[in-house]
Amino acid sequence: MTVADGTPHVVVVGGGFGGLAAVRALRRAPVRVTLVDRRNFHLFQPLAYQVATGALSAAEIATPLRQILRRQRNASVLLADVVGFELARRLVLLGDLPTGEHDRALSYDSLVVAGGSAYGYFGHDDWAAFAPELKSLEGALALRSRILSAFEAAEAELDDGRRRSWLTFAVVGAGPTGVEMAGQIAELARELRRSFRRADTRDARVLLIEAADRVLTSFPPGLSRRAERALERLGVTPRLDTSVVGIGPAAIELRHADGRLESVPTRTVVWAAGVTASPLAGLLAEASGAETDRAGRLLVEPDLTLPGHPEVFALGDMVAVRSSGGGVQQLPGVAPVAMQQGRAVARSLRRGREPFRYRDKGNLATIGRAKAVADVQGVRLSGFPAWVLWLVIHLAYLIGFQNRLLVFLRWTFSYVTRGRGARVIHR
Amino acid sequence: MTVADGTPHVVVVGGGFGGLAAVRALRRAPVRVTLVDRRNFHLFQPLAYQVATGALSAAEIATPLRQILRRQRNASVLLADVVGFELARRLVLLGDLPTGEHDRALSYDSLVVAGGSAYGYFGHDDWAAFAPELKSLEGALALRSRILSAFEAAEAELDDGRRRSWLTFAVVGAGPTGVEMAGQIAELARELRRSFRRADTRDARVLLIEAADRVLTSFPPGLSRRAERALERLGVTPRLDTSVVGIGPAAIELRHADGRLESVPTRTVVWAAGVTASPLAGLLAEASGAETDRAGRLLVEPDLTLPGHPEVFALGDMVAVRSSGGGVQQLPGVAPVAMQQGRAVARSLRRGREPFRYRDKGNLATIGRAKAVADVQGVRLSGFPAWVLWLVIHLAYLIGFQNRLLVFLRWTFSYVTRGRGARVIHR
Repeated sequence: MTVADGTPHVVVVGGGFGGLAAVRALRRAPVRVTLVDRRNFHLFQPLAYQVATGALSAAEIATPLRQILRRQRNASVLLADVVGFELARRLVLLGDLPTGEHDRALSYDSLVVAGGSAYGYFGHDDWAAFAPELKSLEGALALRSRILSAFEAAEAELDDGRRRSWLTFAVVGAGPTGVEMAGQIAELARELRRSFRRADTRDARVLLIEAADRVLTSFPPGLSRRAERALERLGVTPRLDTSVVGIGPAAIELRHADGRLESVPTRTVVWAAGVTASPLAGLLAEASGAETDRAGRLLVEPDLTLPGHPEVFALGDMVAVRSSGGGVQQLPGVAPVAMQQGRAVARSLRRGREPFRYRDKGNLATIGRAKAVADVQGVRLSGFPAWVLWLVIHLAYLIGFQNRLLVFLRWTFSYVTRGRGARVIHR
Repeated sequence: MTVADGTPHVVVVGGGFGGLAAVRALRRAPVRVTLVDRRNFHLFQPLAYQVATGALSAAEIATPLRQILRRQRNASVLLADVVGFELARRLVLLGDLPTGEHDRALSYDSLVVAGGSAYGYFGHDDWAAFAPELKSLEGALALRSRILSAFEAAEAELDDGRRRSWLTFAVVGAGPTGVEMAGQIAELARELRRSFRRADTRDARVLLIEAADRVLTSFPPGLSRRAERALERLGVTPRLDTSVVGIGPAAIELRHADGRLESVPTRTVVWAAGVTASPLAGLLAEASGAETDRAGRLLVEPDLTLPGHPEVFALGDMVAVRSSGGGVQQLPGVAPVAMQQGRAVARSLRRGREPFRYRDKGNLATIGRAKAVADVQGVRLSGFPAWVLWLVIHLAYLIGFQNRLLVFLRWTFSYVTRGRGARVIHR
């Protein structure tokens, strides 16, 4: 794909929050934009846990990238895997297109890489088979099938001990996603009571396992404690100062702060810990000689460019940003950071490079029905007001009027009927 | 699961239209009902083609059986595979529960088997890999991914001939499902035009392949011809008097009425032909010595009982019903037949057995945006009035107020925006 008419070609890799923000912010720029992604949709990952617990259907949080960009005439979408970069020749190398003869390389004038992150298993990749993660739509659907199947198995099971293990759920990692997931499983267990005849789903135990001494470590300690109390009222047992040392098909092995080991029989483990950068960070580091940190994140300049490559930008969860004074900025791995960085890159492309500055608008996590915690510009909220704020913000950032309306209706139904509408077990 | 208190135990196998109708019609009967299904949901199969073309999301046509029956206190649900029957001991044999120790057999006083049907490949099971079918949710989701991926591949493809093969779609079987599917693919191709930049999706060709000399053979010939004209206006090419002799990864081989062979390059084949009865029909025939017909359907008595077993009923697509005068009733394989049979079985269980009589309420098929054909008690409709009738009836029979409202909204959005909201390609 060579540039025929002299219009600069910007290639953006990754259609998550950061990449998509960059593409959209270039809508009036005199450039041609190609967005490359392996998936044909933008995933609204903050609600993936609701797909995993049957509250939402997959399509409601997955909007086709072509649909989002159909009116942006300077943008096109290419469904492809990026397998490498040749920075000297300004080429993105593509693999695995679903077709016969196609471009194997995409040439660019400017490159923006926004590959995001995944949950990492601390080097224990064998745990992945027993503990799906929540960053991808597939992970969320796999978890939904497992969680719902566990209740089905409990209903059929004759042995009491084994029934208990089917009704025990372990969530690893008490960040916002882990907290939300644990709360939802506990609520699901209560809601399902009416639907089962033999198993009492209210006997379900939900453990929330966290190596730190409190949940939601990115929030002020006071809000963490309120979140812990709200979780306990829902039936979640936070296990703080506790780390995971093993996961198998029928148990999770824990180590407590005092060194004591414990084996908890469970069939369902949710993984929401140990964020690790996209492999694209490593590919860019390899191609340029740039550094990566312990989590695999690429170290980029204060203006988000790759060291020595002012035409290459990287952003979002897969990078760590050097501060102008030296050192590395500590930015949370959340959607607002990626979106602000995407817009900053678009600004740099249009008006010349400038250092990125994050404007922290606040921090939100929901815990269960009508409960949440919020820390907005120093104002701390919890309970119902925080939950309403959470609802409004998530609906506002969800892409597309249709999905907003459908999700709003699903939530209204859930709130009124104390049920959830997408309890499909896929084979 | 033995009957402790002397209440008769009715086991119903299959939670499709027929089985579910039987269970619900027993809601006030002095019996205990166990509904056994391999899947945790009732699939509204008449709309599966809309999932396959991205108009609806899976959960909108898949309602959890437990949810449907949560208030019916005499009914319970068991998620299990039925692997056989021991009629002398009145046992249903279960396999493959997702758990350790569980009942391997379910004893009954009365048994109702409603296993439904699948599309059969006329003995060419190797075609299934290239031509998914539309009876199951998995088939519909597989087709959605294939159809959407074909457009993506056409966009990336450099070779003109190959691009044409990616933009050629073949639908085998011109019954209502095949007609609806072909119409929807043609409409999808037009709608996608705005979303693609290189491939002109309006070049898409949709072939509708049918061995008979007209589409919709269950309708009067006049309505078939109107449907053919409507399909042609949408861009569908009906290939009548044509049979399939081969399907591979890149072509479909056809034989015309005059014996001429033709190979059409295509990457996407949809299978909607050759209905074959559920394997449960064969298992019941084996257990009882009853006959099956050429399509694998079990021959049952006029009152839907298994010959020689007045306590065992079978119904729906998996049976052929003997008429009281001898011979076999020709009943269409549609939801209303199964539902009426399910209710008839429930009546027989409550008040004594009586012959089943089908009340034909009519026949409906939709073709595309605001077009349908209807044959209702001899009144023949086509175009917009038939389409409105189709909409109202499908919404009315869809289970659950939430799904009705969501599907209605999706259809409204599609109608107004000429787009569709569930275009997710699953990996």
